Amino acid sequence: MNNVRPRVLVIHGPNLNLLGRREPNVYGSLSLDEIDRRLREKAGALGLDLEIVQTNHEGVMVETIQKAMQGYAGIVINPAAFTHYSIAVRDALAAVSVPSVEVHLSNIYTREEFRRHSVVAPVVDGQISGLGPLGYLLALEAVAAMAGEEK
Amino acid sequence: MNNVRPRVLVIHGPNLNLLGRREPNVYGSLSLDEIDRRLREKAGALGLDLEIVQTNHEGVMVETIQKAMQGYAGIVINPAAFTHYSIAVRDALAAVSVPSVEVHLSNIYTREEFRRHSVVAPVVDGQISGLGPLGYLLALEAVAAMAGEEK
Amino acid sequence: MNNVRPRVLVIHGPNLNLLGRREPNVYGSLSLDEIDRRLREKAGALGLDLEIVQTNHEGVMVETIQKAMQGYAGIVINPAAFTHYSIAVRDALAAVSVPSVEVHLSNIYTREEFRRHSVVAPVVDGQISGLGPLGYLLALEAVAAMAGEEK
Amino acid sequence: MNNVRPRVLVIHGPNLNLLGRREPNVYGSLSLDEIDRRLREKAGALGLDLEIVQTNHEGVMVETIQKAMQGYAGIVINPAAFTHYSIAVRDALAAVSVPSVEVHLSNIYTREEFRRHSVVAPVVDGQISGLGPLGYLLALEAVAAMAGEEK
Amino acid sequence: MNNVRPRVLVIHGPNLNLLGRREPNVYGSLSLDEIDRRLREKAGALGLDLEIVQTNHEGVMVETIQKAMQGYAGIVINPAAFTHYSIAVRDALAAVSVPSVEVHLSNIYTREEFRRHSVVAPVVDGQISGLGPLGYLLALEAVAAMAGEEK
Amino acid sequence: MNNVRPRVLVIHGPNLNLLGRREPNVYGSLSLDEIDRRLREKAGALGLDLEIVQTNHEGVMVETIQKAMQGYAGIVINPAAFTHYSIAVRDALAAVSVPSVEVHLSNIYTREEFRRHSVVAPVVDGQISGLGPLGYLLALEAVAAMAGEEK
Amino acid sequence: MNNVRPRVLVIHGPNLNLLGRREPNVYGSLSLDEIDRRLREKAGALGLDLEIVQTNHEGVMVETIQKAMQGYAGIVINPAAFTHYSIAVRDALAAVSVPSVEVHLSNIYTREEFRRHSVVAPVVDGQISGLGPLGYLLALEAVAAMAGEEK
Amino acid sequence: MNNVRPRVLVIHGPNLNLLGRREPNVYGSLSLDEIDRRLREKAGALGLDLEIVQTNHEGVMVETIQKAMQGYAGIVINPAAFTHYSIAVRDALAAVSVPSVEVHLSNIYTREEFRRHSVVAPVVDGQISGLGPLGYLLALEAVAAMAGEEK
Amino acid sequence: MNNVRPRVLVIHGPNLNLLGRREPNVYGSLSLDEIDRRLREKAGALGLDLEIVQTNHEGVMVETIQKAMQGYAGIVINPAAFTHYSIAVRDALAAVSVPSVEVHLSNIYTREEFRRHSVVAPVVDGQISGLGPLGYLLALEAVAAMAGEEK
Amino acid sequence: MNNVRPRVLVIHGPNLNLLGRREPNVYGSLSLDEIDRRLREKAGALGLDLEIVQTNHEGVMVETIQKAMQGYAGIVINPAAFTHYSIAVRDALAAVSVPSVEVHLSNIYTREEFRRHSVVAPVVDGQISGLGPLGYLLALEAVAAMAGEEK
Amino acid sequence: MNNVRPRVLVIHGPNLNLLGRREPNVYGSLSLDEIDRRLREKAGALGLDLEIVQTNHEGVMVETIQKAMQGYAGIVINPAAFTHYSIAVRDALAAVSVPSVEVHLSNIYTREEFRRHSVVAPVVDGQISGLGPLGYLLALEAVAAMAGEEK
Amino acid sequence: MNNVRPRVLVIHGPNLNLLGRREPNVYGSLSLDEIDRRLREKAGALGLDLEIVQTNHEGVMVETIQKAMQGYAGIVINPAAFTHYSIAVRDALAAVSVPSVEVHLSNIYTREEFRRHSVVAPVVDGQISGLGPLGYLLALEAVAAMAGEEK
Repeated sequence: MNNVRPRVLVIHGPNLNLLGRREPNVYGSLSLDEIDRRLREKAGALGLDLEIVQTNHEGVMVETIQKAMQGYAGIVINPAAFTHYSIAVRDALAAVSVPSVEVHLSNIYTREEFRRHSVVAPVVDGQISGLGPLGYLLALEAVAAMAGEEK
Repeated sequence: MNNVRPRVLVIHGPNLNLLGRREPNVYGSLSLDEIDRRLREKAGALGLDLEIVQTNHEGVMVETIQKAMQGYAGIVINPAAFTHYSIAVRDALAAVSVPSVEVHLSNIYTREEFRRHSVVAPVVDGQISGLGPLGYLLALEAVAAMAGEEK
Repeated sequence: MNNVRPRVLVIHGPNLNLLGRREPNVYGSLSLDEIDRRLREKAGALGLDLEIVQTNHEGVMVETIQKAMQGYAGIVINPAAFTHYSIAVRDALAAVSVPSVEVHLSNIYTREEFRRHSVVAPVVDGQISGLGPLGYLLALEAVAAMAGEEK
Repeated sequence: MNNVRPRVLVIHGPNLNLLGRREPNVYGSLSLDEIDRRLREKAGALGLDLEIVQTNHEGVMVETIQKAMQGYAGIVINPAAFTHYSIAVRDALAAVSVPSVEVHLSNIYTREEFRRHSVVAPVVDGQISGLGPLGYLLALEAVAAMAGEEK
Repeated sequence: MNNVRPRVLVIHGPNLNLLGRREPNVYGSLSLDEIDRRLREKAGALGLDLEIVQTNHEGVMVETIQKAMQGYAGIVINPAAFTHYSIAVRDALAAVSVPSVEVHLSNIYTREEFRRHSVVAPVVDGQISGLGPLGYLLALEAVAAMAGEEK
Repeated sequence: MNNVRPRVLVIHGPNLNLLGRREPNVYGSLSLDEIDRRLREKAGALGLDLEIVQTNHEGVMVETIQKAMQGYAGIVINPAAFTHYSIAVRDALAAVSVPSVEVHLSNIYTREEFRRHSVVAPVVDGQISGLGPLGYLLALEAVAAMAGEEK
Repeated sequence: MNNVRPRVLVIHGPNLNLLGRREPNVYGSLSLDEIDRRLREKAGALGLDLEIVQTNHEGVMVETIQKAMQGYAGIVINPAAFTHYSIAVRDALAAVSVPSVEVHLSNIYTREEFRRHSVVAPVVDGQISGLGPLGYLLALEAVAAMAGEEK
Repeated sequence: MNNVRPRVLVIHGPNLNLLGRREPNVYGSLSLDEIDRRLREKAGALGLDLEIVQTNHEGVMVETIQKAMQGYAGIVINPAAFTHYSIAVRDALAAVSVPSVEVHLSNIYTREEFRRHSVVAPVVDGQISGLGPLGYLLALEAVAAMAGEEK
Repeated sequence: MNNVRPRVLVIHGPNLNLLGRREPNVYGSLSLDEIDRRLREKAGALGLDLEIVQTNHEGVMVETIQKAMQGYAGIVINPAAFTHYSIAVRDALAAVSVPSVEVHLSNIYTREEFRRHSVVAPVVDGQISGLGPLGYLLALEAVAAMAGEEK
Repeated sequence: MNNVRPRVLVIHGPNLNLLGRREPNVYGSLSLDEIDRRLREKAGALGLDLEIVQTNHEGVMVETIQKAMQGYAGIVINPAAFTHYSIAVRDALAAVSVPSVEVHLSNIYTREEFRRHSVVAPVVDGQISGLGPLGYLLALEAVAAMAGEEK
Repeated sequence: MNNVRPRVLVIHGPNLNLLGRREPNVYGSLSLDEIDRRLREKAGALGLDLEIVQTNHEGVMVETIQKAMQGYAGIVINPAAFTHYSIAVRDALAAVSVPSVEVHLSNIYTREEFRRHSVVAPVVDGQISGLGPLGYLLALEAVAAMAGEEK
Repeated sequence: MNNVRPRVLVIHGPNLNLLGRREPNVYGSLSLDEIDRRLREKAGALGLDLEIVQTNHEGVMVETIQKAMQGYAGIVINPAAFTHYSIAVRDALAAVSVPSVEVHLSNIYTREEFRRHSVVAPVVDGQISGLGPLGYLLALEAVAAMAGEEK
């Protein structure tokens, strides 16, 4: 791992591809592309390589997480709807030992009752919610810090 | 939208491809093909174009719904098993602003407790249950009427 | 039953007499008279006779339903508030074997928690909710179809 | 109260007028008239006068119970559907101090969950369920015995 | 409304006609007539006309409330047993826009669990409980004040 | 079964041997011996033979019930504390097909919450509660009647 | 207590010092000072002395209530947030035997679920909610009346 | 089915491809390949053909199960995470009438609360949990026996 | 343990002595003797000695399990009704460190709600349910394998 | 009771005979014999006679408690597993009026959820938990003190 | 710690300063001063120094507990109302490693439902309830014993 | 606000003064002083002034938050134990309109059930948990960003 920069996986869950067009009062008016652009910029500043995946398929999310078992320094994940019921995603995250942070754009505690429960929260390192796109950037910073500590 | 007929999306959820062969005492003995045939006939009478999708994959259902954001006049959806837990499907339906009606062949209120709760019901316009294949036709009629009002 | 047209009972529950004046953002601005007019028009087209009853009294609703045991081809019922607690209305509907459809003007799944539970749903044939006055017409169509099948 | 025979009130709740015709597998094939005949016969043997009321109206049941506050020796009541939610009937029974027994024809503990809860049970003296028409006769016997003890 | 005094509707629910005779340790020994007399006296002092209705029938209570939609300045209501389950009464109160105050003679929070839940509380302006007959007089004062503010 | 009289099993559960001495305000001041004497007297009048067992041991109660599978016409049982948790007693009663009636001396619906739930109620024919020692006699009468019907 | 006027304690709970500035759509635009001024005015009319305390500290509220054990004629208390969890405040109120009335400015039944439960309600005499600043004045009137009755 | 050996479908759910590498204290250190090898060996001994599928995709699992409707003698399935929420998988299993056994490597009753509930258990023939890889072999034996009985 | 064959304890719970005669649609028509015969046959093939106990007494089951602390290689137990509430049986099983497997003849997940909860499952090694008498044989096989591993 | 020393009953529940050998990390390494020796020593110091019973049988525990109705000064009881479900034991304790103290060796509030609920706690005088063998000695001291007060 | 006697902290929670005057039927008629006197007497006998604090302020209780981190041998605490909700007090107790025993004067299991739950019980060593002032003395004895063992 | 740097309030809740000494496996070994030092360093880099308060007193926390209504640009708050029950703290935060972020050092979703519920989460802008001391720094960054946007 001498010359290569640590690689971090960023995973966006279902319907996040609609960002900016979907319920902007809840999720903001920024597009996912713009968030990804900011993430890459931040990654550059932190000396990280990013791999970004958006998927509406639970199976694809599971396998993307599994991939992180080798050669990745950490995971930033917004499981979106899967947050609340996908035990498959939870089990994948539990199987992976790299630092991981769960991000939610909106403050899930001001919304429907079912959004207050995250089945993945107990198996990630930390959770950031309600801070909009900034949440992603802070999560990346946290993953970078945790990855650094473990080196 | 001058000469073209309004296009409505009909979405059948998991295991509905087995219709007629699967638990006929619950779901009836009509095949899905026959239901689709009746839907197309009804659509013709209502001056609508239909696009019909059956899928056993949650991710495919999410993306089919997302497609309706552009160029569609409404959605008739029987989310089948996904009705009860797929928040991903719910979020997709919430993101789409065209008229939508949820259909269930059987009376879900006479069955297992977990079938009485629909996670998508709060984000569609209406729900029709227990009326068998006729429920689809009435849902199509409702979508046509709602689409007409909005013109 | 040769020359006579099948007779269908339409029952409107408590406070529906206020329709158009009561919380129009929830229940719409159409009066009950106008809905009844549309129902009669639709009944004519379907070759049905209608008998329409509105009542604010549970006992009257019970006895109106009981009357349907003889000489009626079906029931369209919006039990309104009684939907959520009147087991007496449920028992009356369970005692009557003609086709029956429960109608709700509003989407009861977007309202107070207690409105999501219908004590009558398990004993009627089907349920239509959220489609406004059109729901009544579709219910009538469904009852006509079910009555026809049983002839 | 020298020469007059003690008077007992028998109250039948909603839909019991359909007895024999309504779900005979649950409620048996005996008509309410036949049950009343047997009750009068038993009352004769016990030296009691009977007054029998059947009503589908909660308000009428409340006022019938209130009437027992004066000049009655006891109440046999099958509140039927009201058993499970009518706090008005409960409050009326609580206000009346004569002996009272609640009767249910069917074994309510083998039926829907909501039928297992009686809101009136805590304010009557006893409850008999599952013994069919015989339950009424035993209840009458119990009321007669309790009334006798209090003389 | 120039010369006429504002008219307020006072509604007493089921079994309140027994007041003074029914469980006096809970409800006090004052009769309803005496409470009504005090209410009229207070109304006179406040420059109000009173119309007082006691009913054991839910349907009558619903229709009495509906009447207040025209020509009344406010409602003082003790729904008694209906407080805890009558969504029909709730819906009627929600449909009426005049000031309304719910009154309970006893402190409902020291009694059976089911008495702690009022289905009407969310649709009235305020609630007064535990203050005995005085509660009615304070409620009348409150309705008078609210009606005055709206003039 | 020509000359022999039908034999009925009466089973008293745990702590009923203390009757008359244990919490007399709840269970009355009659001893179990006196109740048994009244039961035998009533049995004589009904032309029945009685076998009476009192036990504080769940296993003994299970085996006593099992014995009724052969040569008995019915069971009168007061499972006492076992009512609320002994699924073993329930399973024994479910295995036996003779008529059976559950008796409770006190009105279990006015006592602790856990006493309102009977695990045996769904597998017996009927239940009598709150009528004191008389409840046993009425239960015997019911068992005699049911046994007679089945002959 | 000959010449002295009865003294009543008015206690305002946490954050009520912000009244007028805090969420005015919920709590109104009147300042606490103005409410206190009206309370003193009303107290004067009722012949009472007032002592008014506002505190954000649970321990201070407990000790203020304890003080009322001697030399006070009653308590008017708006425990604000403490209403929903402070068993310490409840225990203090339960220890004090003077008349007490709980006041809430807003209708707590139209707000978050947790605001519908008051841990102090079972130990005060009565509760007034939803009537705004007027609620305080009515509570004072009630305390005055109850104190008068006890003299 | 003369010369051909009965074919059994073995289905491994999400994340089981990680077996041996994922939380070995919970799931053991055996790889899935090794388990499959043992299964094939056992199948040979039992005279069965095996088809083994591992998938992280719910839709693929649904369609694999559907395939068993024709030409298969039974199903051994470890739905892994899907056990706890995939009603789509449940519905597919309910639609298929061949013998089926659910397997869990770990004792799910010693783990998180949510793992104690299986949504598929009510629609399979039996369930084996906590016996590690041996559980698969016993399940295969059971399917073979059940398939044999049905011939 | 040189020449002696490992000894396994088989424990049958309450009412299993009725097997074949008790609700055969649920528990099958095989007698317990026949199951025991098959178990002994299987034990012989596995080189095990069996000791088989059936009891309807919780205390006897507890003490039988305690006996396994010395000189036994494992336990196969069908706690029957005790499964659902006997913490005494659970504690005995937890105290014993030999391999243990819980067996249920029927699929407990298709029956009454209370049968879905096993209080012993968390303290045994594994559970087999729904496979009828075969379940016992597979459990024996599992115990033999686990005992073998520990040697 | 002149010359005789007061007699206290000490009752140890199921599986306590295994003490020292059973889960020593939870229950400690002291044997029951050693605890009994310390209890007798303490009893001597307090001037009490002890009768000590250990039983794994609920029926025996019930009858042992019943025996205390005559000639005993108090009860020290560790109902062990029965604590959590044996209403028969509770009813026996409720029937006995001598002072009684419930003891638990371990701190039941740090263990499984079901161990936090004691069905006997409401009918004994006091409870001591988490203090190991010392808890028994303190309980004996408490019973001695309570018995002394009542003389 | 040569010459100095071990120091134990005794903490009394809110409203305990009212002891003897507050609900004496629940809490007894002894004053807190008298209990403290007995505690000091007992402490003398046990060779302990006592520091006794009573506070109605949660923050003060937290800081008093924190003080025990240095130079104290144990804690006897009656958190009174804080028992049921003060996680701050729980966290303080969890941070302190000296032996600690929770005391309740009354049997909290015979009172309101909310008093049956202690948030501090899982972080103290043991709990004594229902034994009145004696409970404090026994707790002191237990702390002394535990402190002695750790020396 | 020309020359002055925006001032941010950092509030540490109860027992955080013990940081580094209290359960270091849960909360880490860093002292609060060290965290404050890092916060000030970060604040310097962000051009902010910090005011840092640690309190074990709910009332002090409420009043500290209230102070932020004037002259502060934002709040970073770790309410510690108060997170889970202090509605007073919640109400104070709701009354203040500056940006606010809730921080938890540990991942509250891997701890006791009651720690998963935050009563303040719905009224702050965002929440960061599980990231240790870094969480505070990220929260400060977020508050700075939000404050910047609002300028």
